[in-house]
Amino acid sequence: MVQKAVVLLSGGLDSSTVLAIARHEGYETYALSFRYGQRHSVELEAAERVAKALGASGHVVADIDLRVFGGSALTADIDVPHHDRAEDLDVGEIPITYVPARNTIFLSFALAWAETLGASDVFIGVNALDYSGYPDCRPEYIEAYERMANLATKAGVEGRQQLKIHTPLIELTKAQTISRGLELGVDYGLTHSCYDPRPDGAGCRTCDSCLLRIRGFAEIGMADPAPYAAGVA
Amino acid sequence: MVQKAVVLLSGGLDSSTVLAIARHEGYETYALSFRYGQRHSVELEAAERVAKALGASGHVVADIDLRVFGGSALTADIDVPHHDRAEDLDVGEIPITYVPARNTIFLSFALAWAETLGASDVFIGVNALDYSGYPDCRPEYIEAYERMANLATKAGVEGRQQLKIHTPLIELTKAQTISRGLELGVDYGLTHSCYDPRPDGAGCRTCDSCLLRIRGFAEIGMADPAPYAAGVA
Repeated sequence: MVQKAVVLLSGGLDSSTVLAIARHEGYETYALSFRYGQRHSVELEAAERVAKALGASGHVVADIDLRVFGGSALTADIDVPHHDRAEDLDVGEIPITYVPARNTIFLSFALAWAETLGASDVFIGVNALDYSGYPDCRPEYIEAYERMANLATKAGVEGRQQLKIHTPLIELTKAQTISRGLELGVDYGLTHSCYDPRPDGAGCRTCDSCLLRIRGFAEIGMADPAPYAAGVA
Repeated sequence: MVQKAVVLLSGGLDSSTVLAIARHEGYETYALSFRYGQRHSVELEAAERVAKALGASGHVVADIDLRVFGGSALTADIDVPHHDRAEDLDVGEIPITYVPARNTIFLSFALAWAETLGASDVFIGVNALDYSGYPDCRPEYIEAYERMANLATKAGVEGRQQLKIHTPLIELTKAQTISRGLELGVDYGLTHSCYDPRPDGAGCRTCDSCLLRIRGFAEIGMADPAPYAAGVA
């Protein structure tokens, strides 16, 4: 029997690679995206393209509104930081673009869907290198989440199945992630990773997310195939 | 300085009592309710009345849509079970009204709001006796959640504050909960606990939630003051 897995999919480079990895490992994949008060919808459009291109068996966009709490540049009226050069990235600090409890909320929805589907596998594209400043991207957080989740559900308590959170990118550099995705046939031209795109969807090329992506493609000597990444819509 | 606390408030008997307890312990309280695809809005109207009556400093209703996943009588088209007598309640089984990962999702939103408020206390009215069939109402689940949460947030990682999840009702019978609430001045006439109210808001008096409530008031020899509980709107 084919195992089902829920894959958190933002439509960015990392989560798209994770979806390809889950498919490659033989899972029937159910992609989960969120409308959470982002400034822009280009990310969700990318998620839809990627889910289709990579053969996800289902794709759901869950509505949650984190704006009621405020507190982050990605959901409120705080300015996203921009830098002139990739060298200015400071990945050791907790950045202002950190959304309170975001991965905790996202994983909780994944857990709900997994339980409904009868799935015991959840994939998430967290990375402890690029996002070392985000507390909820570290292995010890993921392990604690998994332990909690196995006490939260019918399946875990009844011992029928143990939830496993897969983090295939957690120790990879951006260049390694891109290389792995290319091996698996990911079309990065479909993805979108900018925190602060222009109204027409073009990338800013100066936010943390754009800079990490630019550096990743530079390291493997390849041009980023996403039109938005070149600064055009 | 007054400490802030986030209190999960459904508008039912248990969570209303918890709000009174948090206030009594001196917290400035921020009540959090959810619009999560319930069949009815009477619960949220009750939450609003209760938050006001008990002096919450803030009350937010967060929109989440668990219906996209299906899987529970409270959010989908499965019939809520009804019983002729309280003796028919079987609290050892996981009931069909169990919502996948509900408390995990609710606590995750509480965590996000707590972080934004600078609060390190969250109150939740889980009960391990009445709801022994719900895996996410047990002390070991709450402890695992707390541990995870302290690895998820800036404040936890930086050691500035440790999140504490308060579960003041976890070992109380319904009668004990009601007695405690009455001591603290809770007006149970404002609360609403039915899983399957009639279209006019009157209680069914035969679902698990109504039966637990009826039994609780009977044990302390008092009439339930909520108009809905008498089966009238």
